Amino acid sequence: MSTTVVQHVLSRLRDVGITDVFGVPGDFSFPLNDTVDAASGMRWIGCANELNAAYAADGYARVKGAGAVCTTFGVGELSALNAVAGAYAEQLPVFHLVGTPPIAAQAARILSHHTLGNGDFNLFQRMSEPIVCASAVMTPQNVAYETERLIHAAFYHLRPVYMAFPADLATRPALGRAKPVDGPESDALFLEQVVENILSALGRARTACILPGFLVARSRLEASMQAVIDSSGLPFATMLLDKSVLDESQPGYIGMYAGRLLDEDVCQFVESCDVVLAVGVVFSDLNTGAFTAHLDPARLISIGLHQVTLRGRTYHGIEMADVLTLLSKRLTRRRQPACVRATSVRAASGDDSAPITAAALYPRWNMFIRPNDIVVAETSTVSMGLGFARLPRGATFYNQALWGSIGWATPAALGAAVAAPGSRVLLITGEGSHQFTAQEIGQFGRLGLKPVIFVLNNGGYTLERLLCGDPGASYNDIAPWRYAELPRVLGCDGWMTSRVATCGELDQALKRANSAEGGVYIEVVTAPDEAPPFPLRLRDAATRLYRPD
Amino acid sequence: MSTTVVQHVLSRLRDVGITDVFGVPGDFSFPLNDTVDAASGMRWIGCANELNAAYAADGYARVKGAGAVCTTFGVGELSALNAVAGAYAEQLPVFHLVGTPPIAAQAARILSHHTLGNGDFNLFQRMSEPIVCASAVMTPQNVAYETERLIHAAFYHLRPVYMAFPADLATRPALGRAKPVDGPESDALFLEQVVENILSALGRARTACILPGFLVARSRLEASMQAVIDSSGLPFATMLLDKSVLDESQPGYIGMYAGRLLDEDVCQFVESCDVVLAVGVVFSDLNTGAFTAHLDPARLISIGLHQVTLRGRTYHGIEMADVLTLLSKRLTRRRQPACVRATSVRAASGDDSAPITAAALYPRWNMFIRPNDIVVAETSTVSMGLGFARLPRGATFYNQALWGSIGWATPAALGAAVAAPGSRVLLITGEGSHQFTAQEIGQFGRLGLKPVIFVLNNGGYTLERLLCGDPGASYNDIAPWRYAELPRVLGCDGWMTSRVATCGELDQALKRANSAEGGVYIEVVTAPDEAPPFPLRLRDAATRLYRPD
Repeated sequence: MSTTVVQHVLSRLRDVGITDVFGVPGDFSFPLNDTVDAASGMRWIGCANELNAAYAADGYARVKGAGAVCTTFGVGELSALNAVAGAYAEQLPVFHLVGTPPIAAQAARILSHHTLGNGDFNLFQRMSEPIVCASAVMTPQNVAYETERLIHAAFYHLRPVYMAFPADLATRPALGRAKPVDGPESDALFLEQVVENILSALGRARTACILPGFLVARSRLEASMQAVIDSSGLPFATMLLDKSVLDESQPGYIGMYAGRLLDEDVCQFVESCDVVLAVGVVFSDLNTGAFTAHLDPARLISIGLHQVTLRGRTYHGIEMADVLTLLSKRLTRRRQPACVRATSVRAASGDDSAPITAAALYPRWNMFIRPNDIVVAETSTVSMGLGFARLPRGATFYNQALWGSIGWATPAALGAAVAAPGSRVLLITGEGSHQFTAQEIGQFGRLGLKPVIFVLNNGGYTLERLLCGDPGASYNDIAPWRYAELPRVLGCDGWMTSRVATCGELDQALKRANSAEGGVYIEVVTAPDEAPPFPLRLRDAATRLYRPD
Repeated sequence: MSTTVVQHVLSRLRDVGITDVFGVPGDFSFPLNDTVDAASGMRWIGCANELNAAYAADGYARVKGAGAVCTTFGVGELSALNAVAGAYAEQLPVFHLVGTPPIAAQAARILSHHTLGNGDFNLFQRMSEPIVCASAVMTPQNVAYETERLIHAAFYHLRPVYMAFPADLATRPALGRAKPVDGPESDALFLEQVVENILSALGRARTACILPGFLVARSRLEASMQAVIDSSGLPFATMLLDKSVLDESQPGYIGMYAGRLLDEDVCQFVESCDVVLAVGVVFSDLNTGAFTAHLDPARLISIGLHQVTLRGRTYHGIEMADVLTLLSKRLTRRRQPACVRATSVRAASGDDSAPITAAALYPRWNMFIRPNDIVVAETSTVSMGLGFARLPRGATFYNQALWGSIGWATPAALGAAVAAPGSRVLLITGEGSHQFTAQEIGQFGRLGLKPVIFVLNNGGYTLERLLCGDPGASYNDIAPWRYAELPRVLGCDGWMTSRVATCGELDQALKRANSAEGGVYIEVVTAPDEAPPFPLRLRDAATRLYRPD
């Protein structure tokens, strides 16, 4: 039996680790929907809307290395754009599969539904171009080589790609053959020069440290990165976007580096080092404590995905994988004066009857995290508080510190839970963010997944109350939902739900959560101005940065 | 006191009838949020997310003639694109106000949150270009004339416009002055020729009829259109997208024209006329019964916004307003053989204990509609069923038959309710569509609005079950929500809610709804394959049209 265009693409996506496609069906995408449904080893995960589906694919890609979202033409794909842009910014290979009208209808420029009524069928693909690294209209004639090109591009750049499937071509037999594109190789001479340069810089340095970044995780190079840490004996810190890329329970971990905003000891040590080896790091505003991180370019060695910057000069065509492998082989273990040590959580404060303060809450959340948990934290006071928690062995922490689109966390946690059915997934979000995408809670129930969900109800958009001029501005108010009742209404039966407003209630709920049989959903009520230290300091820094007058 | 850039824009938007701005606040848009909050005669309507806010602005624009949505840079604006595209397709002047990073930060290409991390701050405005008719970055120097240009463009084209407000410029004093752009004038010679041509064609015609279209409503030319009907005595039919543009209770109304799919009598009459005068109509797939409408171009006179097509020749630079005014003055009342008459609803069938069939449901809904109600019907079996109901005097019916983005109706109904606080707003939606945007129900409660909401729970995406190859395909299943409990959980207190599965329960609920003090939310349960005639016939036609093999 011949393979259709869609079948061929799905089979190649399965080869690269994608076994679930998130999406919403639609008339132009039925050939995609039908084929996913029928494909062996491939599952259709229906979501409530396309934005949520694309966020879920993002969360899935964080865990499994790549993800896929399937939408219909126009109405469907445009709803997904914000999430696809997030995958672009945060460098996740997400395949956006779009079912489009038949080529015949396009050629006739018919006034079809899901168009602007102007006969133009190419506009939406064009709108996606800035937020994908490659795109193509898949046909029987090109599907073999275009699929290889797009897979290669997605993994080389770690960015989304766009694949359009005209409805009349999608189920036609795929023609021709193509081999996978070879993986990238380093320029041997530059690689050697660069590695020797790094070794010699480290050799001369009295003190040095490593900043392993999120691109290490995206490239699945954690083991190589760990080998460099192990062979060198160098201490490492991480920045917010990079949190949990390596195990935080190991002795070499010195904590979070957030410029001058927090953890002064870490900042002082990192910036005092003669060499700072940054690997796959982006020096964005949130990652650098609103640019309060000051790393001397003369002491900074920055290893990127495909290039290395050393004392201000960039060498292109050098693969991170190769640099790490060579370094781990050639580095010798060094003894460096003892430095900062990451501290574990302090005992959580708060009497049983006391209201839940940030000081009481974050340590409790920290202690609640178990080894190997997957923590999905919404961009907000929540991620900025939990970002400074020290994680137990094997726990991973996902946030969206560059793109920072609130609403991301709820469906991203769904994606992570689908990707890692054996792990406990913790979703921790603010209630303002949760309202953006809360309907996806229903999918956890439908799929029998058992997340632990904390919704911080602090009476509106707290981070924005901090950042805007007037904390009482009414535009930061939101509709007063009864959060703890939401899972039941969205069809999640047998869940443990609770609304807690005192430390005692919170402690009880945390205890029950650990022994719950089903999913867990806890609404944590605090005062509107309760926030951990980082966002409070960010407020002052951001005001200087973005509102100069 | 000087006027700031934002203040100037808001004041001009108020002049053109916009008194409410839908949106979600964000750090780059605080200057916008603050200014709306403080502006007299201007209200901030916070929504749960940006897609919903933009849909609400669409619904508002349908009622008031124009609307505004305010989002933040990147994450916010991209989430709104699908709804803005819908406003483009369905020709609504929606002002998309976007708060962007300070010009200073943009010039420095800083690695800011809400960017792709590549220093490019123009990408998102570029992504909006295909779905707006004009756009500008608003500065103190250009705000006076750019505002006039954009307002003119939005109303001339009846399309959305994009206005970017860099955070550091938004609150600077507006400089310079500009007068509103003059409204468009017709070319006098062509206007005279065209009107005389139309009059003479009508004079020669044995039979003629009018198809008043949605653009008549968008241009607020209902009175001029009605005057043409009145002075000519011509009968009129409407198509799906155009429904309710003129009062359906008047004797000249002959019913819905949907090609060969439904109302055979109407189709036969319209297509037999010697002259068909289409005014502001789009002959799209859904509007024409999947292109089963066959109007002979030689008999068709098509009056567009700014041009007229007569016997295949198009005259540009002629305003619909002027054509209608001249026609109504010069037309003489004609007596034409009696033709089809729109029938009113048949008695609703179904015993009290009987399950709710489509045949029982749609007539009941029809009879429930009161004079002057605003009905917002989701694109689905619901709009395709209700579209053929005859409306009482003054009732209006909104659907999204060209763009057809499901999820639109719930927030659009919110926008309509905000725009028309004195009217009863009916939201009628399928539950699959409702899940896309259901969180906006909370805003009705928060704002004290009292809609009547029907959620048709037919166990998944029924229209797609009809259109896809396999009605049982699991991708058309959705999470099993407890819909009737949703309003309470989303903070709507004092609402009447009900779940009905038999005709008796439905009748009871309809009766209670009519005397309810607060909002009403009724979940109507039917079998998955219950559908009114139009979508059933559409299935066969669409299969031929879009899936040729």
